[in-house]
Amino acid sequence: MENSFVLMGLGAMGYGMGQSLLRAGIEVDGFDLNAETRSRFRQESGRSLDIDAAAVTAAGAIIVVVNAAQTEEAIFGTEGLASKLKPGAVIISCATISAQQAVDFEARAEALGLMYLDAPISGGSARAAQGKLSIMASGKPEAFTKAQPALEAMAETVFRLGDKAGPGSAMKSVNQLLAGVHIAATAEAFAFGLSQGVDAEQIMQVIPRCAGSSWMFENRGPYIAAGDYRPHSAVDIFVKDLGIVTSAASASSLELPVAKTALARFRDASEKGLGREGDVAVVKLYRDQAGLELPSPTNGGE
Amino acid sequence: MENSFVLMGLGAMGYGMGQSLLRAGIEVDGFDLNAETRSRFRQESGRSLDIDAAAVTAAGAIIVVVNAAQTEEAIFGTEGLASKLKPGAVIISCATISAQQAVDFEARAEALGLMYLDAPISGGSARAAQGKLSIMASGKPEAFTKAQPALEAMAETVFRLGDKAGPGSAMKSVNQLLAGVHIAATAEAFAFGLSQGVDAEQIMQVIPRCAGSSWMFENRGPYIAAGDYRPHSAVDIFVKDLGIVTSAASASSLELPVAKTALARFRDASEKGLGREGDVAVVKLYRDQAGLELPSPTNGGE
Repeated sequence: MENSFVLMGLGAMGYGMGQSLLRAGIEVDGFDLNAETRSRFRQESGRSLDIDAAAVTAAGAIIVVVNAAQTEEAIFGTEGLASKLKPGAVIISCATISAQQAVDFEARAEALGLMYLDAPISGGSARAAQGKLSIMASGKPEAFTKAQPALEAMAETVFRLGDKAGPGSAMKSVNQLLAGVHIAATAEAFAFGLSQGVDAEQIMQVIPRCAGSSWMFENRGPYIAAGDYRPHSAVDIFVKDLGIVTSAASASSLELPVAKTALARFRDASEKGLGREGDVAVVKLYRDQAGLELPSPTNGGE
Repeated sequence: MENSFVLMGLGAMGYGMGQSLLRAGIEVDGFDLNAETRSRFRQESGRSLDIDAAAVTAAGAIIVVVNAAQTEEAIFGTEGLASKLKPGAVIISCATISAQQAVDFEARAEALGLMYLDAPISGGSARAAQGKLSIMASGKPEAFTKAQPALEAMAETVFRLGDKAGPGSAMKSVNQLLAGVHIAATAEAFAFGLSQGVDAEQIMQVIPRCAGSSWMFENRGPYIAAGDYRPHSAVDIFVKDLGIVTSAASASSLELPVAKTALARFRDASEKGLGREGDVAVVKLYRDQAGLELPSPTNGGE
């Protein structure tokens, strides 16, 4: 059981990561607060999934894919993992948290005789299910050694960014700065194109072949062109992630005018009640400000 | 000679486009105000290159790749092309100008019995030389017909965006909004990473594999990591291009907070005397504000 894993959090990302682990032949118990998700994972895995003491105590490593707000409680809360794990087990933490928080979590885990791997992920749920994530990881070499089979099963590329917690989450923050700005820029570019009489479908055909493209443009643009505001990833995620970015920069006396403007867009959208819509709902701010007509599933969608 | 072309402007983009035209077996006379560039092109093409009346009068189409400020003079100035071309010749205009200006140029060309193709380009000088540009074109079908052999020789993809001038340049403005924001975001992301102790080389290894990547990040990031501020494309280009974007949006009463913030970064850099450095010199604003140490060719470059 030394090499078995527990996966905590079977949301869109975690569920896909679980599938990749199972496909690679790794023993993994999946747990989620949502009973329906748990039951679906059990059918695929054939494995027990209650987060009982036996499975957790036996595990060599726990992969934590709950959201950032839940991560501290999941690990260090009164019913948290840290109180159940055997000494030397590795906590692999995947949520987007600040580098400072990752440093703190590592210190608290080590004080309890546990190891901690700072291992935020990038790529979205589709790539999670394909085992093609990018993992920005840092931590002690022994933590990497224990986590390695799982990291390889879940990721196309595992970046080893240092031998302590912090650099992994710092790099994830760099990524989220760019990702958040690019989503806001995607929304703004569609609004601008529409204001100039350019069609959303044409924008989606042309820009991915031009120097203005981005990973986020190609990923999120189709939602705007199809009028799809379901929360594949919600506005409030970037209120949180760009908040982490700007707070960390403030602590280093660095001003980030571009990220700050993007953050203000996500906050404005959230305050308008769009926080739980897909993050491209930022485009609705432009619609309301300038009276634009956005594509809808009936007039511009698939 | 009906199918011959004249290429006006042999800068980094124009020169590469000329090479692609020659490789495709297209008769092209190249002209540039710079005598050394002209002479280099003559050696490659074996063709006359003085912008003499005979070559221009004979040409079926003129490809204008001078910068935006020079385009009006090159076409409609007292010594401009429009006064020399034979009726029915096509002016293929490649600079980034506003959609409104493209509409005006078409009207003026047509009043002189000429045709006009609104044909801005994207991809950079390397792709120009490989014949792999993207061209965002709009104009009359007859203009497309005459221009087609040259467009195909220069481009991997020719987008036909409408049957009059305007939509081509409008789409280019959408692209420049994104491109400008992404360059500013790239500079800001490097500055942020450095402030958090993340190494520029690591950023360059990780981000292109993650959701924060963009065409501009992958193209410009290596310059920051190598401390290379030569003007492959200068800060002042985006002062101009984002100025076109924000002016066009203003005319439609649309606010563009993200693009406006990026424009302010390029303007700040220009006012600090960095206007003729490479556009990534925006990162020096962050260096000066927060006292960061940027990579230099000696400490972080190749």
